[in-house]
Amino acid sequence: MTETPFSRLEPALAANAIDGVLLTSPASLAYFADYETQIESGAAPWLPCPAALLWLHGQSPVLFLAEGEDAPPDSVFNQVRFAGYVYREPLPGIQSLIVALETQLGSCAHATIGVELACLPAAVLVALTESFPQLRFVEVSAALGELRAIKTPSELERIRRAVRFCDCGQRAAKQHAREGMKEIELFSLIHAEIEAEAGCRVPVLADLLSGPRTALVGGVPTSRTICRQDLVLVDIIVRHDCYWGDSCNTFAIGSRNKQQESHFERVLAALHEAIARIKPGLRVSELDHFLRLAMTHDGSSFPHHSGHGIGVTWHEEPRIVPYNEAVLVEGMVIALEPGIYLKDEYGIRLESVVAVTSRGAELLTGFAHTL
Amino acid sequence: MTETPFSRLEPALAANAIDGVLLTSPASLAYFADYETQIESGAAPWLPCPAALLWLHGQSPVLFLAEGEDAPPDSVFNQVRFAGYVYREPLPGIQSLIVALETQLGSCAHATIGVELACLPAAVLVALTESFPQLRFVEVSAALGELRAIKTPSELERIRRAVRFCDCGQRAAKQHAREGMKEIELFSLIHAEIEAEAGCRVPVLADLLSGPRTALVGGVPTSRTICRQDLVLVDIIVRHDCYWGDSCNTFAIGSRNKQQESHFERVLAALHEAIARIKPGLRVSELDHFLRLAMTHDGSSFPHHSGHGIGVTWHEEPRIVPYNEAVLVEGMVIALEPGIYLKDEYGIRLESVVAVTSRGAELLTGFAHTL
Repeated sequence: MTETPFSRLEPALAANAIDGVLLTSPASLAYFADYETQIESGAAPWLPCPAALLWLHGQSPVLFLAEGEDAPPDSVFNQVRFAGYVYREPLPGIQSLIVALETQLGSCAHATIGVELACLPAAVLVALTESFPQLRFVEVSAALGELRAIKTPSELERIRRAVRFCDCGQRAAKQHAREGMKEIELFSLIHAEIEAEAGCRVPVLADLLSGPRTALVGGVPTSRTICRQDLVLVDIIVRHDCYWGDSCNTFAIGSRNKQQESHFERVLAALHEAIARIKPGLRVSELDHFLRLAMTHDGSSFPHHSGHGIGVTWHEEPRIVPYNEAVLVEGMVIALEPGIYLKDEYGIRLESVVAVTSRGAELLTGFAHTL
Repeated sequence: MTETPFSRLEPALAANAIDGVLLTSPASLAYFADYETQIESGAAPWLPCPAALLWLHGQSPVLFLAEGEDAPPDSVFNQVRFAGYVYREPLPGIQSLIVALETQLGSCAHATIGVELACLPAAVLVALTESFPQLRFVEVSAALGELRAIKTPSELERIRRAVRFCDCGQRAAKQHAREGMKEIELFSLIHAEIEAEAGCRVPVLADLLSGPRTALVGGVPTSRTICRQDLVLVDIIVRHDCYWGDSCNTFAIGSRNKQQESHFERVLAALHEAIARIKPGLRVSELDHFLRLAMTHDGSSFPHHSGHGIGVTWHEEPRIVPYNEAVLVEGMVIALEPGIYLKDEYGIRLESVVAVTSRGAELLTGFAHTL
């Protein structure tokens, strides 16, 4: 039998006597059903929950989709359509999803259903609890997060493609950045090159900071004009085909000073050394500790995580943080992002994405970090 | 006493014996607290609900914001910060918002609280119901939608500015569109001009269709190459400072034929005539009927609404649809978007935004629709 996301989930459900799952988070809809939530403009005002996925043990999964929503390409799932926005009739809102769910759940009114309570609209829970008082709902978000931390080969391939769009963006950043250009102008050029490469709209989350703003660690591009001798910090997080890529580079406009060069080299060396240390069994807190120690010298600070897992979300397990006592496992994909920040002066952060292999790490990032 | 969104809400609450509201929809957070939901990259994976607003009658409103979230500029609200993502400690997730809400609600454990059940995380409702069994939650979404349909002068000013960014985008579309360019390339150029004008990132929801694709009514820009004699349909919906603008134009690349000219003129005349008919007291269904009748001739179709209200969402009351028996009221702001679609051939849609004034309509759209 082919392994599917559902078959991988099965042991966790069985261990907790859970009969099925009703999934509504963007992450789960992408992971289990290849459904890409529309995020460039937010959820439709008339329907905050455009899709839901119901899987009852022993049955085929059912994807509930609002009318008008694009179905995932090549979806093999049973699909149930519920009314979204229909101009001829009053808005049904979330009630039409509820009715569709009730119809499907009628046959298992005594089941225990795993849900993601932070992403489940209260309206759905209230209605289902009223219609099926014997139905029991239990939180499964943590189990889903653990499951997602280890990627399959096909997931890895999709992350690889998303990271290539980050490479494209980083090359565009270095190519286009000029003294006199505004941060937002540089961002638009980067975004345009990524979209031209992809041939479609591409959601991009970005920190784009120049000059002393780089010391702020993060921030959206503004109308600040990039000046001669500025550093520019570009952190680009791109979604493509349900999966996210990540990347960061920091480079100088024109000349840079010795201290900046030395800090850049220190961050780059730490990034390379951290990647060289990666292998199955390495404790995550040790990886964080190594980078944290390498980054904190002579008054500089490193006020954030050393990295994070990446997949259908841009930040997931394993989080490379001091308290994480988990160990690396083959199939994990992590972004590592050491940085050095000097208050009111500048910040330098460099980031690559790697996959944990049986013997070490495979670098997915393809662009070269250069100052 | 200055009128505020809360004072306008008060009569609806009083009429239903509601003691306060707990608001979590992006629309309400924008409307009541000037809080702009981050939408270019979706909600943070670790916190699907980055903010909430609690207003108990007779008390000051309290805005709950995750650590790290930008507060609205010039906010006069009491702010309570709850833990978002902290790299030093395990993720608190939505639990930290719940604890903050419980602290605040402790003093009114017997109240009736208005909520938006479709946008309230089930986790919050479950926890509050358990902690305060006497607390009663009632749905207030419809009342909020009615309240929002009529804009204040300051809201009108903000929509006016958002519409100006649409004008900028429409001018860029006509200026840059060329034979041989891909739809997505044209979109990126439009997006870049809007962002350059705004000096910051600007969420844009867009239909951008060329050639026979224009007959599809809606669709995201693709890698299709724009050809000579194509029509290009550009529908741009832009958010700025919490408010949305909307606009649509359809134009030809090079020459157009007599039928296209005649259809364009028919749509434009209907749009102008509809705007001329607008005045307080006009039944919305009549406005829809007028445009629907004007658009359906000789085998063409008009398979969508005639328009919609616009404000902190890009689609709200009054919806200009056949079943809507509401009447126009001074202060409403509506987008009108008649169109003619010929299956497999082409579609032409033109859209303007207008405010209903005491005597008629004020046109907010500033670009001229030209074929």
